[in-house]
Amino acid sequence: MPESGNNTLILKGNIIYAKSPEELICSDRSYLVCEDGRCAGVFQTLPEAYAGIPVTDYGDHLIIPGLVDLHLHAPQYAYRGLGMDLELVDWLERVTFPEEAKYAEITYAARAYETFAEQMKQTATTRMVVFGTVHAEATLLLARKLSEAGFGAYVGKVNMDRNAPESLCEESATASFTATMDYLRKFTFLKAQGKISDRVQPIITPRFIPSCSRELMDDLGELARQQGLKVQSHLSESKKEIAWVSELEPDCDFYGACYARAGMMGNPVPSVMAHCVWSLPEEVQMMKEGDVFIAHCPQSNTNLASGIAPVRHYLTEGLHVGLGTDIAGGFSRSIFRAMADAVQVSKLYFRYVDQKKQPLTLSEAFHMGTMGGGAFFGNVGSFLPGYEFDAVIIDDTGLASVLSMNLAERIERVMYMPELCSVTAKYVSGERVL
Amino acid sequence: MPESGNNTLILKGNIIYAKSPEELICSDRSYLVCEDGRCAGVFQTLPEAYAGIPVTDYGDHLIIPGLVDLHLHAPQYAYRGLGMDLELVDWLERVTFPEEAKYAEITYAARAYETFAEQMKQTATTRMVVFGTVHAEATLLLARKLSEAGFGAYVGKVNMDRNAPESLCEESATASFTATMDYLRKFTFLKAQGKISDRVQPIITPRFIPSCSRELMDDLGELARQQGLKVQSHLSESKKEIAWVSELEPDCDFYGACYARAGMMGNPVPSVMAHCVWSLPEEVQMMKEGDVFIAHCPQSNTNLASGIAPVRHYLTEGLHVGLGTDIAGGFSRSIFRAMADAVQVSKLYFRYVDQKKQPLTLSEAFHMGTMGGGAFFGNVGSFLPGYEFDAVIIDDTGLASVLSMNLAERIERVMYMPELCSVTAKYVSGERVL
Repeated sequence: MPESGNNTLILKGNIIYAKSPEELICSDRSYLVCEDGRCAGVFQTLPEAYAGIPVTDYGDHLIIPGLVDLHLHAPQYAYRGLGMDLELVDWLERVTFPEEAKYAEITYAARAYETFAEQMKQTATTRMVVFGTVHAEATLLLARKLSEAGFGAYVGKVNMDRNAPESLCEESATASFTATMDYLRKFTFLKAQGKISDRVQPIITPRFIPSCSRELMDDLGELARQQGLKVQSHLSESKKEIAWVSELEPDCDFYGACYARAGMMGNPVPSVMAHCVWSLPEEVQMMKEGDVFIAHCPQSNTNLASGIAPVRHYLTEGLHVGLGTDIAGGFSRSIFRAMADAVQVSKLYFRYVDQKKQPLTLSEAFHMGTMGGGAFFGNVGSFLPGYEFDAVIIDDTGLASVLSMNLAERIERVMYMPELCSVTAKYVSGERVL
Repeated sequence: MPESGNNTLILKGNIIYAKSPEELICSDRSYLVCEDGRCAGVFQTLPEAYAGIPVTDYGDHLIIPGLVDLHLHAPQYAYRGLGMDLELVDWLERVTFPEEAKYAEITYAARAYETFAEQMKQTATTRMVVFGTVHAEATLLLARKLSEAGFGAYVGKVNMDRNAPESLCEESATASFTATMDYLRKFTFLKAQGKISDRVQPIITPRFIPSCSRELMDDLGELARQQGLKVQSHLSESKKEIAWVSELEPDCDFYGACYARAGMMGNPVPSVMAHCVWSLPEEVQMMKEGDVFIAHCPQSNTNLASGIAPVRHYLTEGLHVGLGTDIAGGFSRSIFRAMADAVQVSKLYFRYVDQKKQPLTLSEAFHMGTMGGGAFFGNVGSFLPGYEFDAVIIDDTGLASVLSMNLAERIERVMYMPELCSVTAKYVSGERVL
């Protein structure tokens, strides 16, 4: 038992967290201890060592690890739930690109990102891996807003030097690369000034292969390697997109190989790839070897009629899988909803694609939305000792009924009906942010 | 223009309603006039004939027809969102039946149905076709609660005389039939006492073929015909269930034929069948000829891994299709959510089953959730002249963003994010109920 001091925080309530994809730990009216921003343990009776330290008692509320959103686009927040009749490539051209172009104007970006950060703060999400736009200034502003709202986040200025409308396309690979260098420099400067917290970091963000020339990809990959940066992008989302990639990059045997050629498919560069709906066996093998994270975005993949990612297969293969809302391919900002969506589409996959692939369980979905995605941030997403202390307090009295329910039942209902619950408090790395 | 008098009601706001599956009418800041409980028209400028009649101005809120839930189980409301890891037959045995047995106790039923009616009242639903349990007293209580909450509803005492646990199974076909007669008699009595409104009616409710002997079905069909009652049941929901039916009823060529044999597949007995995920061509033809309503319950069909109903096909064939939440196969009580779910699963059907079947549009989904299902109640679910005046006022300020949106865009976002909107007022047949 570590000695307890000023940096100790103790919460009491109904504690629920994942220990593994198969094991959900539920501990009624227990104590959750934080020491120096990290979990020190969950106890049914408070150990002697902590006697005298004030306990914040959340009564019958639920205490769970903060949720992790591995993939979303902040500039698309303003119009989520619009244009849902379109497929990926059409949707990008008709809805997304014209809107993202507006972020060249910093006052527009400020209004939109202020709303984004404030509204996301009310959700159970504590960590996110997020796309901005190609605009460095607007994306730095996004990083500041997320920092002020207390999030842990990787925030990426997007790179696009081809196949984008004039208003968004960067002039050349060099121009795009230079803008990213500028973004990174200013990011460091804002951190030094204390305007961006240590929990918010930049990330290299080529939009996807159709938007990035080989030269640009090579330069960005080299940069990530040299500066120890992580990478986020999109991979094998829709069949039309995949056909386009193979037309653009005939030298790559498959989509993921284009990222690999630039050194962006994992080790030594940590990467997260959104979607992976149609990944070929070679691509899956490559992700496995590179410890690449998959951001599973079930709602977006349904909305854009892309398909259903074979998550059961990925889990069996031991790949790293987390969840993403993919705002605004997904309309919902809730990772609880993403958990429910993941279970739901896995049932349709089972029914229509492969009856040997068992649907995902509640516990697997909860794990993906916390510990699974959290691993991209380090020891994040659980209350196991040593994990960063991200905790969310959930009031689920809106779900009360004539039946009394145990904690596993209550968290299942929260997952399916998060709109009837509220987040009453939130901690990130031990700091109270809501 | 009819002469206007004391029975005239005028609302002003942003009016949205379906005229057909293809045509969504959006009328900014317009007047919606009700005469004697029925719509008299939508006007951009108020006609002279209505001068001097007070106008209730709902400002920038949306005014839409009340939503229609064609299929849900009231006694399952208390545990929606539980046991979502099970398929239909297992879920019935392990979760549903043990809970429904409790409704033998009237005090338990009273507590549960009070909550159900009160909470459903806050939603945008104004009409429902609902299952109770086998218990006549509890189901009468349900009808009273729904009447008090202002709903239009068909409320059914369930029949089950086989393949049910002892606690729920009625002793014989005769006992089940007698209990239904008792239910109908008491229903009439409560109506005469003014304890159940004219908008709430009984409906014949054999649970599904596996639960009802042929003798019982024949008697109930005859009863419906003689007394001019409608019928609700389940049809072709899951493959396992269908196999069971063909084992139990080898004389019927297909599932729907068992209902037809008892005179319960439409004309002259109006019927609504929930699900129809796996209906054979003969069954579809039979529903078409009998004007049978299909209650499409996309969320439930996903949760129970039943499959995806081929709704595009049904619409092309000209069948009557409405939406159901199917609480608690579905966990959500929102028909907006059912609209969004219907669009979403139709995209996966398109992707995985038949790429000739175009996904449903926003307008088709909205139509199903209002006018499509509403037709089971008569002229219900639209603001066309002569339709019953069911109107719901929606405050969607929770969806405000930096972008300004037109009404079609606003209703699309309400459909996808109803949890961020609220119902501020509600009218059924011209009567304000919320």
